[in-house]
Amino acid sequence: MNKHINKLVLDTNIFINPKSRDLFGNSPTEAFKKFLEYAVKKENIQFFMPPSIFNELMDFIDKKTISHQLLLTMQKKSPKKYELKVPGFLLYELIDDIRKRVNKGLRLSEKAIREAKDKEITEDIISNLRNKYRAALREGTIDSKEDVDLILLAKELEATLVTTDKGVITWAEKLGISWLEPDYLKKLVI
Amino acid sequence: MNKHINKLVLDTNIFINPKSRDLFGNSPTEAFKKFLEYAVKKENIQFFMPPSIFNELMDFIDKKTISHQLLLTMQKKSPKKYELKVPGFLLYELIDDIRKRVNKGLRLSEKAIREAKDKEITEDIISNLRNKYRAALREGTIDSKEDVDLILLAKELEATLVTTDKGVITWAEKLGISWLEPDYLKKLVI
Repeated sequence: MNKHINKLVLDTNIFINPKSRDLFGNSPTEAFKKFLEYAVKKENIQFFMPPSIFNELMDFIDKKTISHQLLLTMQKKSPKKYELKVPGFLLYELIDDIRKRVNKGLRLSEKAIREAKDKEITEDIISNLRNKYRAALREGTIDSKEDVDLILLAKELEATLVTTDKGVITWAEKLGISWLEPDYLKKLVI
Repeated sequence: MNKHINKLVLDTNIFINPKSRDLFGNSPTEAFKKFLEYAVKKENIQFFMPPSIFNELMDFIDKKTISHQLLLTMQKKSPKKYELKVPGFLLYELIDDIRKRVNKGLRLSEKAIREAKDKEITEDIISNLRNKYRAALREGTIDSKEDVDLILLAKELEATLVTTDKGVITWAEKLGISWLEPDYLKKLVI
C-alpha cells in the first residue's frame, strides 16, 4: 500500500490502449469493470475523471453491464477552470511550441505539393500528408479540451495523474503535477 | 488630458504601420523620435515596452539619431512571467482556437495538392498556400513570444495596451486588459 497517493485522476487511454488495458481485462468494458471492482474496495484512494474524459470512455464501454454502485467509485469532476490559475511562462512555452509545429506543418505540405506534381496517385499523397501533419501538429502536446481538463483537475486536487499520453505528461511536468504510467495502477488498487 | 491613463504599453506596429506611424512622422525613425519628444514632456504618463518589442522596433529605426535622454522615456521592462498567473480557462480557449486553425491548415494543404496535380506552376501554388496557411494559422491570435510579452506586461502593470494587432487585442480582452488604437495615442501625448 502506498501512503502518499490518495487521489488519482485517470485518463481514458488506460482502459482503451491494449497494453495498459490488458492489466485489467481484454476489452475496455471488462478492463474498466475489473478496475472498478478493485477500486471500490480501496477506501484510502479517491478516483476522479473529468466528465469529458468519462464521456469519452463511455463511447468504448457497455455501460449497462456495470452496476451503479461500481460506477459511483469513479467521481466525475471538472476542474474549477474559472478560478484556477496557471503561471504566465506556460503561455510562452505553449505559443513557442505551437509556432514550431505550425512551421513544420507548412514544410510538410510544401513537400507533398512537389510530390503531387510528379506522381500519379494524389489520394495517397494526401493521406500520407494527413498522417504526418497530424503527428507534427498534435503528438506530444496538449491539443484538446480533454487534455486540459486532466491537467487542471490533477493540479486542483493535488492528485496523481494516470495516463499514457506523452503530451499530457509533458504539460503535467511543467506544472509540477505527479503522474504515473498505468502499469503502476494495478499495484495501487489490488 | 486623460486622468485615467497613466501607464501605456506600446507595440512596435504603432511606429511601423504607415497608417498609425504617419500620425507622428513619415518614417519609423521620424515617427518614434517625434513621439518621444512629446512623451518626454508628459510627466503624468509612463511609457513601457517589453525588451523583445523594443528590439523588434530597433530593427526599423536609426537609433543613433535619437538622444539617450529621449530613449530613456521608453521604459524597457519584461513581464514577471514566473510570478504572473493567468486563468485556467484561457488554456481551453487557446487550445480550442489552435485546433480549429490546425484543421484549417490541413484542408488548405489538401486543396493545394489537388491543384498541383492539374496545373503547371507548382511554385505559384506553394507561394499561394504559404500566404493562406500563415493567415489561417497566425492571424487574429497570439503567435509569438513578443505577443505574450505585451499582454502579460500590460496585465502586470495594469497599463493600457496600444497596438494595431488584432490577435493581441483579442487576448487582451479575454484578460480584461484595457487597450487603445494608435489613433488615440497622439491625443494622449500632445
